[in-house]
Amino acid sequence: MQQIVSNISVDCVIFGFDFNQLNVLLVERKLVDEKTNEILIDDWTLTGYHILEDEDFDTAAARILKKVSGLDNIYLEQFYAFGNVNRVNSPKDKLWIEHQSGFSERIVTVGYYSLIDNTTVTLSLKERNVKWFPITDLPELGFDHQEILNKALEKLREKLRYEPIGFELLPEKFSISLLQKLYESILGASLDRRNFRKKVLQLKYIIPLNEKQKGVKHKPAQLFIFSKDVYERTKRERFDFII
Amino acid sequence: MQQIVSNISVDCVIFGFDFNQLNVLLVERKLVDEKTNEILIDDWTLTGYHILEDEDFDTAAARILKKVSGLDNIYLEQFYAFGNVNRVNSPKDKLWIEHQSGFSERIVTVGYYSLIDNTTVTLSLKERNVKWFPITDLPELGFDHQEILNKALEKLREKLRYEPIGFELLPEKFSISLLQKLYESILGASLDRRNFRKKVLQLKYIIPLNEKQKGVKHKPAQLFIFSKDVYERTKRERFDFII
Repeated sequence: MQQIVSNISVDCVIFGFDFNQLNVLLVERKLVDEKTNEILIDDWTLTGYHILEDEDFDTAAARILKKVSGLDNIYLEQFYAFGNVNRVNSPKDKLWIEHQSGFSERIVTVGYYSLIDNTTVTLSLKERNVKWFPITDLPELGFDHQEILNKALEKLREKLRYEPIGFELLPEKFSISLLQKLYESILGASLDRRNFRKKVLQLKYIIPLNEKQKGVKHKPAQLFIFSKDVYERTKRERFDFII
Repeated sequence: MQQIVSNISVDCVIFGFDFNQLNVLLVERKLVDEKTNEILIDDWTLTGYHILEDEDFDTAAARILKKVSGLDNIYLEQFYAFGNVNRVNSPKDKLWIEHQSGFSERIVTVGYYSLIDNTTVTLSLKERNVKWFPITDLPELGFDHQEILNKALEKLREKLRYEPIGFELLPEKFSISLLQKLYESILGASLDRRNFRKKVLQLKYIIPLNEKQKGVKHKPAQLFIFSKDVYERTKRERFDFII
């Protein structure tokens, strides 16, 4: 068993899209007094853990993600390191830390976000309760995890301004309406349907298939795939920047 | 005197623009054998130091920047945390760490970049040699600092795709040619003069002055200022994203 680095952790903000809204995966943090059975803490946190002595940040993040979701090879992006002196500040947070062995009082954490089509995930963190929450309806979060989540969302929105990362959250084949719903969920705003459609149809890296939706009640929509190849090729030809 | 956190540091990639090219500030790393006077190490690194026990990351970065440049209130942006197990790997790096007291063998570092109009800076790190180097002509760097610098430049170029941060590197009043030179230096590419000019003149937040360059040999060009106010206002009206 490898030693943990007592003052450095990795926290994962796991975003999932269920074809309707953007969700985030949270883990229940529960502490019960062994003698009185009184519930001392019962709230939610992001998924995270200390790095091990012989472990890189990326490896630690992938390990944590695998443990909670059972999935390998998931999109993971480091977005920010949190090192404020008062990160662990509330009485509840201090109580929690006291009950963990080998943890420092001052812990800095490196934030990663990951993007998952959350219809494919089987949640598997056995010892604790794990659940998807819509980002528009979150419970109270422990530590500074609300701040970490806000920063992840801010960075995800920024990234959406220069990379088409949304496809990580979609099934391989998707309709334009589903793509629009995804963008609206991430941006927290509604977009004009006609303009969105027009923009998508101009893009060489979103390729129309000779195939339509199946088993839907409304008129089946055309399906598309995203071509990373075509995107990378056309990207190199452009110099996008704003002045 | 506050204690340092032995395994966590902050490194600053200080970018400066001298009206001609993009530069980065480096510090000489020199180690001389006290008995034989043999030079054991003589190369360059970024500016960095351990965080203190009661210090946030942002505060540490500002402290380091102030120490080397004498400047306060400089644009600073955290861009990435580096935690690879083999960060300190070469014999030279190991020798350097051995000669510092209180340093861990495994150090993780949080990278910040800062943007300075480098004609205004008086370098002031007394005990060691400090120098600007063009990013196109760098010496050999110690530790993994070449990797950190590459990542900073990558993140700076990304940011240029969604925020007009270049103005931090310019004097308050500037000509369109100077702005173009700055963008070309950062992007490492040449831009079409006419298109660039046309784009700038359309932007409401780049405001023409009733004033021209002074003391230049060529025909004096019109000067402009950047309005952060106008930029922020127009930004809120848009939903920029790429699909």
